Amino acid sequence: MENAQGLTIVNTGNGKGKTTAALGLALRAWGNGLKVLILQFIKGNWKYGELKAVQQLAPNLVIRQMGEGFTQQDGEAETKKHRVAAQETLEIAKEEMLAGHWDMIVLDELNYAIKFGLIQVDQALELIALKPAQIHLVITGRDAKEEIIACADLVTEMKEVKHHYKAGIKAQRGIEF
Amino acid sequence: MENAQGLTIVNTGNGKGKTTAALGLALRAWGNGLKVLILQFIKGNWKYGELKAVQQLAPNLVIRQMGEGFTQQDGEAETKKHRVAAQETLEIAKEEMLAGHWDMIVLDELNYAIKFGLIQVDQALELIALKPAQIHLVITGRDAKEEIIACADLVTEMKEVKHHYKAGIKAQRGIEF
Repeated sequence: MENAQGLTIVNTGNGKGKTTAALGLALRAWGNGLKVLILQFIKGNWKYGELKAVQQLAPNLVIRQMGEGFTQQDGEAETKKHRVAAQETLEIAKEEMLAGHWDMIVLDELNYAIKFGLIQVDQALELIALKPAQIHLVITGRDAKEEIIACADLVTEMKEVKHHYKAGIKAQRGIEF
Repeated sequence: MENAQGLTIVNTGNGKGKTTAALGLALRAWGNGLKVLILQFIKGNWKYGELKAVQQLAPNLVIRQMGEGFTQQDGEAETKKHRVAAQETLEIAKEEMLAGHWDMIVLDELNYAIKFGLIQVDQALELIALKPAQIHLVITGRDAKEEIIACADLVTEMKEVKHHYKAGIKAQRGIEF
């Protein structure tokens, strides 16, 4: 690969499209012959049709739903369980990143896991620092920490301009689920 | 389909991810059994790996590259050619939308075609007004006009926070091409 330099990419912001754009990026990379692993830190956020669709695709585009269905409303006992799951996911991310098999790894909702204290920001920074040069790392989730943004190459904020929920339109099949 | 209400979705802004998120949305919808058509108003913007990838997928997820490789630097004769191509794409969009076959239609780079005068904003508004209730319409491209935003249900601005080109890192396979 000429000029190959793995990028650290962050999709953040309060709008739609962070995970969806990561999926599109994964699909594009896969279409270019790259091997892509998607690791979900927070399971609940995408039981979407995309999972079904992607699972019909090739062995070189793999999605692993690691986290539990974390919500802000969970109590301390629940949160502890989520923390254990997120920490396990972080370990797997590290192993997979260093295994030399993947060209792109998506850490879906890592920012969210950091925001809610399931992962410490220093742990995430350590993971990014360990990234082999040629691997693309894609990190999603709202409220990306400044430290994460500082060490990323490409950062996009998906900003909500208008949302149909506010107009009383319900979640739609094929869009939200 | 319960509560089925087709949405008009706009992905705009100066950042990455507008078309990519539309592709992710298309993939998700397709994974949910919806029939999806992607029409590209400006061809040049995505000769990406995603095309290759998607074309390996199902007959119910179709991408048609309609436009020519428009750039701002083109002269009057070239621009006229692009205008004809864009107007043809608009006609096809209308026909396909009214044909009753598709559940989701992506009008890729329509905003860009409007911005550069290949399509009049009134023509786009007329198209949106003709949308059958159950169809999802996804419009991408930077600098979406206020009138387009006004009649959309869901609008997201993809905002560039940081870009690796500015740090002198070249376009990377699997990311930009």
